Amino acid sequence: MRWAVVLAGGVGARFWPVSTARRPKQLLALAGDRPLVAESVERLLPLVPAERVLVVGSPALQEPLRRALPGLPAANVLAEPRAASTAPALAWATARAAAGDGAAAVLSVHADWTVADPEAFRAAAAAALDLAEREDALVTVGARPTRPEIGYGYVVPGAPLGAGSGRRIARFVEKPDAAEAARLIAAGALWNTGMFAWTAARFRAECRRHAPELAGGLPALDRGDVEGFYRAATPVSVDVGLYERTDRGAVLPGDFGWDDVGSWAALARVRAPDAAGNVTVGRAHVVDAAGCIVWSEDGTTVLDGVSDLVVVRARGVTLVTTRERAPHLKELLARLPSDVAERGGEGEPR
Amino acid sequence: MRWAVVLAGGVGARFWPVSTARRPKQLLALAGDRPLVAESVERLLPLVPAERVLVVGSPALQEPLRRALPGLPAANVLAEPRAASTAPALAWATARAAAGDGAAAVLSVHADWTVADPEAFRAAAAAALDLAEREDALVTVGARPTRPEIGYGYVVPGAPLGAGSGRRIARFVEKPDAAEAARLIAAGALWNTGMFAWTAARFRAECRRHAPELAGGLPALDRGDVEGFYRAATPVSVDVGLYERTDRGAVLPGDFGWDDVGSWAALARVRAPDAAGNVTVGRAHVVDAAGCIVWSEDGTTVLDGVSDLVVVRARGVTLVTTRERAPHLKELLARLPSDVAERGGEGEPR
Repeated sequence: MRWAVVLAGGVGARFWPVSTARRPKQLLALAGDRPLVAESVERLLPLVPAERVLVVGSPALQEPLRRALPGLPAANVLAEPRAASTAPALAWATARAAAGDGAAAVLSVHADWTVADPEAFRAAAAAALDLAEREDALVTVGARPTRPEIGYGYVVPGAPLGAGSGRRIARFVEKPDAAEAARLIAAGALWNTGMFAWTAARFRAECRRHAPELAGGLPALDRGDVEGFYRAATPVSVDVGLYERTDRGAVLPGDFGWDDVGSWAALARVRAPDAAGNVTVGRAHVVDAAGCIVWSEDGTTVLDGVSDLVVVRARGVTLVTTRERAPHLKELLARLPSDVAERGGEGEPR
Repeated sequence: MRWAVVLAGGVGARFWPVSTARRPKQLLALAGDRPLVAESVERLLPLVPAERVLVVGSPALQEPLRRALPGLPAANVLAEPRAASTAPALAWATARAAAGDGAAAVLSVHADWTVADPEAFRAAAAAALDLAEREDALVTVGARPTRPEIGYGYVVPGAPLGAGSGRRIARFVEKPDAAEAARLIAAGALWNTGMFAWTAARFRAECRRHAPELAGGLPALDRGDVEGFYRAATPVSVDVGLYERTDRGAVLPGDFGWDDVGSWAALARVRAPDAAGNVTVGRAHVVDAAGCIVWSEDGTTVLDGVSDLVVVRARGVTLVTTRERAPHLKELLARLPSDVAERGGEGEPR
């Protein structure tokens, strides 16, 4: 049967001062009225029933995730004993799917994406699962680039695989500069979204063959000893641990308006702007402003005669930066006094 | 004897969202640690003893003013029955000074100025009182312009008056455009500060001769009937009601770093900026920012990679505008929903 795994363990400081360790990006209603993780699960449901959707997060997030996902069986929200990148999480979830289902096929997505066209998303997901089953491959879905983004990884398709649009993977390129991104796009490279599909059997086989970081712990997983598996595992991403090593990789293009909502600046893409290109959320008012992003959570924010700013008011902090600098919040936080960087982090509004 | 009158009745919305009807600009610590009105009174004390400093405000401000001015006799803080511009307030205060002092000479200042050189300020004030007494004139002190400010009134000196640097007044020019301001400055015009000096006797005589707005009410004032005086008076400024009409006007130049702190943008002049020209007050942090003014009163404000902005966080509102637009806050407020414009006005922080 088909399963879906939603990776929901991210922490990240890219949405400071709104996001916190207990309320990370995937639990924020960044793109609409509901948390990204709720939209991510709902998007899957016509394809995979709730009983076969697994959500993986940290222990601290287990309760918030369950509250955000009332339609999901509570037992389907898994809490990793420790953060160990994506490969151990996916190995655990895949093993869980396979436990009572020898023919399990798994689709893997992240909890914090937005998708403009959910129908097309599900069609691509179904095609990826088909390809994984038919070709016994580890499939990655590549989004067709709409801009020379330098923050993403790219996947370069290789030789055709089967009758459809599936291809072997020629190579991966992580975070190219703008010129290389443009060259990659011209050559047909796709954004490496992190949307994957595999059969549980093939995933396990490739783990044993290519991923020593995981292989030693698999017997523990078989015994249901999750703690033991995580103790034995070495943190590694599934991209590095499996996709860059396997000869059974495949890539399938997808056009479904994928966005990883990587920073405040992304709100200009994933929310409807006004005629002057401003996006406002909460009690915000813009006058003679253009291209601004305003998130006003704990009060009122008024912008007057400014452009291309990101202004966030939350948790007792107002952040004023530019759209250009918004993706580099981490660098800003490193330059602030720690009590400020952590506030709008953990503290209460002053 | 010499008296000083401090006009402290202003309301004004130029420091929204910090200023409110009950906490207007003169009660804010805009330039230092203490309210402007406290600095204004303290600046006078070496020249005029506290018993002869009168402060005129509205009934709503009487208590806040008394609290801000603990060194002043409470009875010296006068509350006008109604707002009626500057001439009635000064007529009342002058009459009060004259009541037990036939030779009263009055210096008039505003409660919301800053003065970089208080010594020079007092020297100019003393010289203005001297001139008023010696020449029986209505004296205005003109500040030597340091920039072609278009928000100010200018006074053009005329023929010399007596032995000192006093002159007759050739004319007043209200809010010239930039080109005319430059011409005026080149021709020796001064900023019309609103710092005045007169004898009580001459002030009363000129009121009777030139200011029908006030003359009819003077007998009520003589009887101590302030209500009756204000009922009879028509609102008019002392500039229009007396200075533009009298032939006994005189102007004295003064160089004491006068600033009327007309908008948030003025904080760049009246407070010490950092090396990048930023002025921050309260819990504010600036990173790679230049020429910004930040006032953070009810939380923390962080600026990152922006320039020439004014950012004010107070009373549940964050305002983000430019230094250029800061003097035009009134126009912004007119374009905001009234509940927003009035908040950070009257409301409690949300």
